Amino acid sequence: MEKRTTYCGLVTEKYIGQEVILKGWVQKRRDLGGLIFIDLRDREGIVQVVFNPDFSQDALAIAETIRSEYVVEVRGKVTERAAAVVNSKIKTGKIEVQVAEVNIINKSETPPFQIEAETDISEDIRLKYRYLDLRREPLANTFKMRHQITRAVRNYLDESGFYEVETPVLTKSTPEGARDYLVPSRVQEGKFFALPQSPQIFKQLLMIGGFDKYYQIVKCFRDEDLRADRQPEFTQIDIEMSFVDQEDVMAMNEGMLARIMKDVKGIDITTPFPRMTYAEAMRDYGIDKPDTRFDMKLKTLNDLASKMDFKVFSEAVKNGGAVKAIVVKGAADKYSRKDIDALQEFAKIYGAKGLAWVKVVEDGLNGPIAKFFDEAITAELIKLTGAENGDLVLFVADKSSVVNASLANLRNKLGKDLGLIDENKFNFLWVTDWPLFEYDEELDRYFAAHHPFTAPKPEHLDLLKSNPEAAEANAYDVVLNGYELGGGSIRIHDQEVQAQMFEALGFTKEEAEEQFGFLMNAFKFGAPPHGGIALGLDRMVMLLAGRTNLRDVIAFPKTASATDLLTEAPSAVATAQLDDLHIALNIKETANTEEEKEDTK
Amino acid sequence: MEKRTTYCGLVTEKYIGQEVILKGWVQKRRDLGGLIFIDLRDREGIVQVVFNPDFSQDALAIAETIRSEYVVEVRGKVTERAAAVVNSKIKTGKIEVQVAEVNIINKSETPPFQIEAETDISEDIRLKYRYLDLRREPLANTFKMRHQITRAVRNYLDESGFYEVETPVLTKSTPEGARDYLVPSRVQEGKFFALPQSPQIFKQLLMIGGFDKYYQIVKCFRDEDLRADRQPEFTQIDIEMSFVDQEDVMAMNEGMLARIMKDVKGIDITTPFPRMTYAEAMRDYGIDKPDTRFDMKLKTLNDLASKMDFKVFSEAVKNGGAVKAIVVKGAADKYSRKDIDALQEFAKIYGAKGLAWVKVVEDGLNGPIAKFFDEAITAELIKLTGAENGDLVLFVADKSSVVNASLANLRNKLGKDLGLIDENKFNFLWVTDWPLFEYDEELDRYFAAHHPFTAPKPEHLDLLKSNPEAAEANAYDVVLNGYELGGGSIRIHDQEVQAQMFEALGFTKEEAEEQFGFLMNAFKFGAPPHGGIALGLDRMVMLLAGRTNLRDVIAFPKTASATDLLTEAPSAVATAQLDDLHIALNIKETANTEEEKEDTK
Repeated sequence: MEKRTTYCGLVTEKYIGQEVILKGWVQKRRDLGGLIFIDLRDREGIVQVVFNPDFSQDALAIAETIRSEYVVEVRGKVTERAAAVVNSKIKTGKIEVQVAEVNIINKSETPPFQIEAETDISEDIRLKYRYLDLRREPLANTFKMRHQITRAVRNYLDESGFYEVETPVLTKSTPEGARDYLVPSRVQEGKFFALPQSPQIFKQLLMIGGFDKYYQIVKCFRDEDLRADRQPEFTQIDIEMSFVDQEDVMAMNEGMLARIMKDVKGIDITTPFPRMTYAEAMRDYGIDKPDTRFDMKLKTLNDLASKMDFKVFSEAVKNGGAVKAIVVKGAADKYSRKDIDALQEFAKIYGAKGLAWVKVVEDGLNGPIAKFFDEAITAELIKLTGAENGDLVLFVADKSSVVNASLANLRNKLGKDLGLIDENKFNFLWVTDWPLFEYDEELDRYFAAHHPFTAPKPEHLDLLKSNPEAAEANAYDVVLNGYELGGGSIRIHDQEVQAQMFEALGFTKEEAEEQFGFLMNAFKFGAPPHGGIALGLDRMVMLLAGRTNLRDVIAFPKTASATDLLTEAPSAVATAQLDDLHIALNIKETANTEEEKEDTK
Repeated sequence: MEKRTTYCGLVTEKYIGQEVILKGWVQKRRDLGGLIFIDLRDREGIVQVVFNPDFSQDALAIAETIRSEYVVEVRGKVTERAAAVVNSKIKTGKIEVQVAEVNIINKSETPPFQIEAETDISEDIRLKYRYLDLRREPLANTFKMRHQITRAVRNYLDESGFYEVETPVLTKSTPEGARDYLVPSRVQEGKFFALPQSPQIFKQLLMIGGFDKYYQIVKCFRDEDLRADRQPEFTQIDIEMSFVDQEDVMAMNEGMLARIMKDVKGIDITTPFPRMTYAEAMRDYGIDKPDTRFDMKLKTLNDLASKMDFKVFSEAVKNGGAVKAIVVKGAADKYSRKDIDALQEFAKIYGAKGLAWVKVVEDGLNGPIAKFFDEAITAELIKLTGAENGDLVLFVADKSSVVNASLANLRNKLGKDLGLIDENKFNFLWVTDWPLFEYDEELDRYFAAHHPFTAPKPEHLDLLKSNPEAAEANAYDVVLNGYELGGGSIRIHDQEVQAQMFEALGFTKEEAEEQFGFLMNAFKFGAPPHGGIALGLDRMVMLLAGRTNLRDVIAFPKTASATDLLTEAPSAVATAQLDDLHIALNIKETANTEEEKEDTK
């Protein structure tokens, strides 16, 4: 048979009366009144092809042997469907193809699961047969969208004068940040490459090299324990610009996101995006990536709590912690004590020791701690929180980090549970003025909140030594609907400042030199001011495609144990391969294998 | 100072009379008659800025402190240059900028080498200071071109309905092909990922998944000993299509290359490209990637040689080898005996034991072996080779592979040496009908000439068992000016054929199952016919940019020992990192380290 004339999913009314050649997969076969109907599928959709003995006895005979997922080609005439059998759900629903000729191109065994939009097959099975899973329309559509998104990004950045430059995958291990994936060198015994956690240093070197505007859509790697929204390899839209300030990078990025929304979703979003400082986000939402599609802000009640006779509250404040509350509008009647207990259990996940609550009723407050609220305190609570008759007020009193984490997550949960979120909204938001450092209590040292190349605000330079915790950075995160979409900063371009930064992070001069000497060296030869941003492509696709699982937007994803169930990577390799790389296995015997040894004695 | 108004390199006559703000690097400072002239450089080029005390005494004072590679910003008025000082070599040569204000943004130490187009600084130094090397105009231009090429590729493929899909970097090690880079798994003790040598299997799985048209510009990895035109990580334009035959893939590829040539070089190239079978290429050029920009074809003289009394010739044929010749037009007088000896030494690199030669003179042949050519043989030689009076004829007699390799390389050398090559020509060529297998004498087994997924010609299926060497593939290479630009094939989509292929390659059923079971399994569930191509992006950029070194087209390349001289990757890592990965160093003590031990006793 000749080449196909179009895709199955594109055979609309305009083909009526024409002969078409189509190639695709058999979605479904139905035998009805001496006729055979087949839904033929390709990446563009489904078309109904009809085998009618009046049209071709031979084709009908072949059709009788056709099963699901066979690959077939058909030649036939497009006819209009009778009004009664029009399927308005699909683009090809007004026509069908009367088959004159059919060939089976390839057969299929009965697949392990049916190829259909909705499936309750376990993800493990679907990952093992990923090529079948990818035939499912929702997944196929996700990858179309992923393509459209990168296309929009490239078009925007190309038109804005950015050059795409590739940076190395085999690069240098640095102890800062997450765990590196290592690659042993064959040529240099005992040495290792690392897969990049981001091209951060290379893009800065490109700026020092005068490239001025760089971008790359690039794979990055982190050997971390995986959660549902993490993958060992992930894709980043990586951008860097010279001679810019924070406003330039933010404006460029707003333009890019607006372009994506327009090209991919057909939505005009408003720029500039709303902004919030990190401090405001933590104060009002308890989290650095607020979902602003609904209100229910956190209210700080420290002053009020100090005045109360309720020790849980007053002690928390006294110990340097906080008391905050959220108001669940009109929820007083909806939430039983049992329901509230469940909320408390949820809050405990985030470290809260308890969840205090009151219901606002006509004549005051209700609930086990209502007694601690006298008239004045109640009035102040009402004033501070805006709570009204019929509202439920939830309190957490603890150290600030626990208060924020538990109430922020409770807020997000309630937003979903109560249907407060308009799923059609895309709320972009900047979170600015980040702290430069984060203090790690366990390791008793400061870490860079973003990374060690982030520029302190010039007026905070002195704080690097005197009060690191108070130092703020020219850093900015872009948030979409409660997810961090990306983050960036103006970078240090002065070797002195960079040296101070490494010192503040606890590096000795020698360590800084050994790990980042080449960058410090580069700063000596005319580094321009520069800054940039990196956005997580996988997460962006997930959000725009309305998925909740990162694995749905990666063609061949890995499971939580970083396994590819399809190819069964990682796998054992030949000892000779390891010898070549000057390494050997070094497997600690676990209790388990000891037991096994016992068993085999 | 405000934002720049344009790039330095773009300040042409149209700015005359306007005030501009420019930011860039100081290329050169000249002090002349109380004025200071600075060539200010950014990625778009150079502009001359003038510090004149009549215009700004302050600016002049600052200018006196400015050195090469300082980063500065200037505000000034664009004026026309006097006719006598117009520089027609640069775009901004008709103007200069009279500086009203200047700021030093960042200083520079004296760089280890001057930033100029031509340099004789060693490559090692330039790689160590790659960020400075990248400021050199020829290199910067190469990366602009690289960007333009990928842009043209994406535009063409996007418009042609291809989806870009990312395939994994952490994937499965397979013993076939080159040596893998391995990545130890932390989660799965004793197991390893491999970095992909190509996304071959994944793109085939995408076809089985119904994606229909796939592309990706993707990093691939081979842990091989490096030559000037190899890098451990390289970039491939990777393409796959379903329901296509060889002609479809070739036509698509021709369209893409034509688009690149048009968009990037402004050249209209003719499609379809000329074609040559592999057998013809080996016969006429001795090589599978002929440079067709000049003639000098290899002439096969086996029949003639058999008839001759010259044992070197006749024995070669008798032993199953070949005798071939190339005619160097008009070179009889140019090449002395010493010159020809040098050519012989060159031929020996490729295994030739000697290089026989005759010069065609008015009354016959000249040279040490002329005596073996009687009148009839001479006439036949003249007829077969087209040699004329004044030509030099070079012969190699040996086994075919040696004859071909030595004459092909000699031909390429002579083409260059004699200026026979029009460097402005871009000769694209298809080499088709490849053998399916290559025989490795050392290992005494067949290898896939392309890869084990290449489809045999349907009519050659029986040869897989009976006569593998004669089996041909639906495979095609695209060649540009003597370089392999890319290669592709129609793939096997039938599990039976794939199983036969693995068998022919010496895999046991178990080995095939273990390594490629998931692919064979996928073939069971409706694999469409499919094929594709992969092109080497680095090499393409190198050829179009007129470079001869792959490192010039890679932003951060590695040396022949796979080292990044800038970051000093690979490097030693902490033992704790290795412990996490369940590996240990396994360094064999070499004679050298033994000696060192002796020394330290």
